[in-house]
Amino acid sequence: MNELTHTAADVLSRLRAKRPLILSLTNNVVQNITANMLLATGGVPVMLTHSEEIHDLLHSCANGLLVNVGTLSEQQAQTMITAVKDAQKAGIPWVLDPVAVGLLKYRTEVCRTLLQTPPAMIRGNASEIIALAGAEGALCRGVESTAESAAALQAAQSLARSTGAAVLVTGETDYATDGTTTITCRNGDEIMTRVTGVGCAMGALAAACLAGADTPLQAAAATAAILGIAGERAAAKCPLPGSFAAQLLDELAALSPDDVAKSALLEQM
Amino acid sequence: MNELTHTAADVLSRLRAKRPLILSLTNNVVQNITANMLLATGGVPVMLTHSEEIHDLLHSCANGLLVNVGTLSEQQAQTMITAVKDAQKAGIPWVLDPVAVGLLKYRTEVCRTLLQTPPAMIRGNASEIIALAGAEGALCRGVESTAESAAALQAAQSLARSTGAAVLVTGETDYATDGTTTITCRNGDEIMTRVTGVGCAMGALAAACLAGADTPLQAAAATAAILGIAGERAAAKCPLPGSFAAQLLDELAALSPDDVAKSALLEQM
Amino acid sequence: MNELTHTAADVLSRLRAKRPLILSLTNNVVQNITANMLLATGGVPVMLTHSEEIHDLLHSCANGLLVNVGTLSEQQAQTMITAVKDAQKAGIPWVLDPVAVGLLKYRTEVCRTLLQTPPAMIRGNASEIIALAGAEGALCRGVESTAESAAALQAAQSLARSTGAAVLVTGETDYATDGTTTITCRNGDEIMTRVTGVGCAMGALAAACLAGADTPLQAAAATAAILGIAGERAAAKCPLPGSFAAQLLDELAALSPDDVAKSALLEQM
Repeated sequence: MNELTHTAADVLSRLRAKRPLILSLTNNVVQNITANMLLATGGVPVMLTHSEEIHDLLHSCANGLLVNVGTLSEQQAQTMITAVKDAQKAGIPWVLDPVAVGLLKYRTEVCRTLLQTPPAMIRGNASEIIALAGAEGALCRGVESTAESAAALQAAQSLARSTGAAVLVTGETDYATDGTTTITCRNGDEIMTRVTGVGCAMGALAAACLAGADTPLQAAAATAAILGIAGERAAAKCPLPGSFAAQLLDELAALSPDDVAKSALLEQM
Repeated sequence: MNELTHTAADVLSRLRAKRPLILSLTNNVVQNITANMLLATGGVPVMLTHSEEIHDLLHSCANGLLVNVGTLSEQQAQTMITAVKDAQKAGIPWVLDPVAVGLLKYRTEVCRTLLQTPPAMIRGNASEIIALAGAEGALCRGVESTAESAAALQAAQSLARSTGAAVLVTGETDYATDGTTTITCRNGDEIMTRVTGVGCAMGALAAACLAGADTPLQAAAATAAILGIAGERAAAKCPLPGSFAAQLLDELAALSPDDVAKSALLEQM
Repeated sequence: MNELTHTAADVLSRLRAKRPLILSLTNNVVQNITANMLLATGGVPVMLTHSEEIHDLLHSCANGLLVNVGTLSEQQAQTMITAVKDAQKAGIPWVLDPVAVGLLKYRTEVCRTLLQTPPAMIRGNASEIIALAGAEGALCRGVESTAESAAALQAAQSLARSTGAAVLVTGETDYATDGTTTITCRNGDEIMTRVTGVGCAMGALAAACLAGADTPLQAAAATAAILGIAGERAAAKCPLPGSFAAQLLDELAALSPDDVAKSALLEQM
């Protein structure tokens, strides 16, 4: 146990006490698992589509906002652009998940527009982070990264500096960086990539962790550790994807801050 | 076993024999679990988005309609307003689930418009029922009630009288009322609130129970008992949310009318 | 083991090696299970809504396209009509799932328009295939067939000849035909019809199998066998729908080409 693991445990503890209400503007495929993973971890999920309602929620009881462009439509893009501005005015941190950015032009442009309103965190795979940072490099294959997470480290640090956000690059090793300090997380299991929505739901957990952390970097590292530990525990019991998905929710619900303190594999680079 | 539990058992028995086809116009987050809970209980789920198709289904083989405003858009609101009128013309009972009404203005207005076409049943948590009845009081926190179900009893009775619908207020104790007679149901388990969509899917079960009941009040009480018994059985085996969700479907499918007669905790107030 | 079972095993083997990226334009209710069943079997799922992004993906890394009209809107219909033309230009095979065609007029017309761009495969239940072939006959009850699959055999053969597609009629016995040769598959279990989306997800598996087969007929027979074997194995362990759904994903992931060769019940008529 080091300072970093202690902090991650503390984030979970504070998240559970606060029960942050997270508004997720996310893709159609993962809404249910996103809500369930957030609930299991200790947050309160809300999904909305109407801009006026989004405005009202952000100015009343919301604690965080996730924007995930997985199945972006033109109408949803407009809603998202308005929502991040509303969040900014209301002082609510927002998280960007730039699904398949770099591969698909329309969403790449929309994400650039969204970034004019600074997010607290950006979570993506290596290909997405490289593309969002404007670097030439690996493209996604659909929603999959074609690059190792380490290959995106420099792009992540540069993106963190240019946006002011913490950047969380997920892969076999996860990297959390604020552009100055970088933390690695070696928790997790490969099967997490074979259940639809685990990565996308991570964005909602990240928004919830922001409500329990002092800095976005702490929240990013805690997100990686909490989900990674739950994932490796679930994989040890259920190595196949259908039972794994149910078990992952059980492990998130059963996970204690002590478990995080003992099992988090976090290190400063 | 009393008269009320016998009736609830009978509703399940008749529902299974009839296999009612329930059209659910519901939110994006819960469509899958809604369809699966309905199928497991004995109904036939259909979801549609096109007004003309909704019209055609309501005038051909539909037996009930659920309207749930959880992720309402302007287009969906128009579709729903037309759909409840179509249902009325076709003589098909409809159920309203006023998710987060009171907290969010747009949907509150839409629900008031919808209520100009009388529903057979309204199912909500305490905050939603209080808000829909027009009473001042507790607001939702997102989709969660901030009030105990008992606090909504008077509002529920008043709402039942003004709309002609049976009102089902869900919470630790559920209340079913037609404005004159009120039935309490003490079945259920707290974990049912920690799986996304169980409450929303209850609206589809309610629509199915209408097809097996003589009165909306009977259907409301049966809905609470059937889902509550399945929920407490599932919770006893699977106390964590991921495995609970799967077990709940198994218990709904395995539940017999005899189980309902023996385990329903229904009482007239 | 005969020639047909050997071929089906080979399709699974080649599918796993290729990991085809399948774009599914499908209904809102089943997107998650569609993605998960495809991932478990060995494909890579993508869902999109924006026509320009669909165009870009079909002209870059997509290997197959599924079009499922389950919750069709006017906007989605336009997107689908454009998408199948894009797929044709890009040389990518597409699969049509004509959910509830015959019962609902709007989608029936849209499917006729879609068929002006020849699909590689059409998968439906007996009622849907009979309606799509233009024959008078059994209607759906919602999404359920009111006819036995055998009753659609002649319509399937006629539809295959008129469209050039392989047609897969699913039911207690599945029929795969190219209009000349017809193969029966007797794998599967009745519980597969009591979990929402298993049939719809079959269309995505079919698109993936096209990438591992020499002919659409081979792909259709392999689809029926692979899903049917996984379904009967899952049903033997988990006879109730909630646990069955999770187990089905586990069985698809664990299924080997050898299992298919040994257990496929495929015969040429």
